Amino acid sequence: MKLPVTKARSVSRSELYELTEFAGQLADAAGAAILPYFRSSVEIDHKPGRGDFDPVTVADIAAETVMRELITQTYPEHGIFGEEFGSFTGTSGLTWVLDPIDGTRAFISGIPLWGTLIALHNGEQSVIGVADQPYLQERFIGNSLQATLYTRSGETRLHTRQCDKLSQATLMATSPDIFDTAHEKDKFESVAAAAKMTRYGGDCYAYCMLASGFVDVVVEAGLQPYDIQALVPIIENAGGYVTDWSGGNDLASGRVVAAGCQALLQEVIALTGQSPGD
Amino acid sequence: MKLPVTKARSVSRSELYELTEFAGQLADAAGAAILPYFRSSVEIDHKPGRGDFDPVTVADIAAETVMRELITQTYPEHGIFGEEFGSFTGTSGLTWVLDPIDGTRAFISGIPLWGTLIALHNGEQSVIGVADQPYLQERFIGNSLQATLYTRSGETRLHTRQCDKLSQATLMATSPDIFDTAHEKDKFESVAAAAKMTRYGGDCYAYCMLASGFVDVVVEAGLQPYDIQALVPIIENAGGYVTDWSGGNDLASGRVVAAGCQALLQEVIALTGQSPGD
Repeated sequence: MKLPVTKARSVSRSELYELTEFAGQLADAAGAAILPYFRSSVEIDHKPGRGDFDPVTVADIAAETVMRELITQTYPEHGIFGEEFGSFTGTSGLTWVLDPIDGTRAFISGIPLWGTLIALHNGEQSVIGVADQPYLQERFIGNSLQATLYTRSGETRLHTRQCDKLSQATLMATSPDIFDTAHEKDKFESVAAAAKMTRYGGDCYAYCMLASGFVDVVVEAGLQPYDIQALVPIIENAGGYVTDWSGGNDLASGRVVAAGCQALLQEVIALTGQSPGD
Repeated sequence: MKLPVTKARSVSRSELYELTEFAGQLADAAGAAILPYFRSSVEIDHKPGRGDFDPVTVADIAAETVMRELITQTYPEHGIFGEEFGSFTGTSGLTWVLDPIDGTRAFISGIPLWGTLIALHNGEQSVIGVADQPYLQERFIGNSLQATLYTRSGETRLHTRQCDKLSQATLMATSPDIFDTAHEKDKFESVAAAAKMTRYGGDCYAYCMLASGFVDVVVEAGLQPYDIQALVPIIENAGGYVTDWSGGNDLASGRVVAAGCQALLQEVIALTGQSPGD
């Protein structure tokens, strides 16, 4: 499933304020729908045609439903691109990209590193991104004005960390098992072998920690648009970079490198970039 | 570093109440010492002779220091076995086994799945175990009376989940990289291949989620006594099992299987158990 890339629809500063506020309301509604199911007995469906094991919880569906309802009521002209219920194009040139629970495996394991991902895409790029962890009461929001973490104890402006050398870098990925082909595994392993430390098990939270300056690089593959679009404005407006494995903007490839600084990005894409004939 | 196994020193019910209360005070003190350093700029030392990379934070040292002071003041006859400052035998037959920050890699990556581990060992086994996550305000406590999770919103009695088949089980391990030898890697991979789902990145939190009934099995290697002793009373008193890879009680081997039910334990140790000639 690909997010259609069209002409960029410009978003004014006042729209950006209004729609960022609305994105927060979507996250509030999703969190309220999801939390009763976290660490409770959850019915797990099996998505047909999705391979071995891809748990979908009732919480996932409940949260996407409430977010879609809110969008349809408030901005009926806006498009919607969601994990659970597919896409609706709209007429505004703006599309909400929704992943109610990124990290369903973390979720069903009781691990509070899953998140609700909400992006507003203008046809060219995401102009607003929200990653919300309602159990931790942490909300990461990025737009062209700023990238900020909101918690119980206040708000913190996000800044990525300068780390010029991969040999000094903390690398994260959700799992070594997300790399499907030998090619992908080899590329990832070449990055892991050069990094100071590799840690698994982050899902969206790994990108949030990169935006917060505690992780230097995330390398993943097999991502859907709703897995990454919300994270781009958070990382970029915290000073970081999100590209495909060749350093370009083909995030629809599902192969993503996020890095806290330009020097590190260059060192990583030199390893992950496509060889001739790939 | 091995925990000396001696004659079991019996602990009365009233002692158990008193010492469990005291273990909670140790966790309070450790959390207060550690939290100011979590997600702040932390000085990272390099432990000599520990291989490539083993971060030790100032928080780690600060927390073990305050716990040792409290023990020495309150129970000068008790032994102490800590990660940072070695062991003190004492005269009581009881030893506090301390890991101020289990999961230092999670800690320095900003991921709130590290924990303070506190066990009281009676020469034969741990009779009290505490796993405390002060950022999440979650405290898991196990003793022969009960296993309980204390959170901001109250307390929950812990129960492992019945999962009779590995093909239905959620497996966790901190990282595929914790298995040093080809033998260990092969054994772990045989378990992972048979499990329904494998998730990495738990540290002590994976065992806590097993005690909570959201994870079915944890298989790890290279553990030190202070990495596992506190988790045993939490898991066992929630209905689960902790053994070495052969199903015995040689946790000093560092190779640990934790399982939520007996049938699953048996299926896993049939895979991890030592072959003749190992």
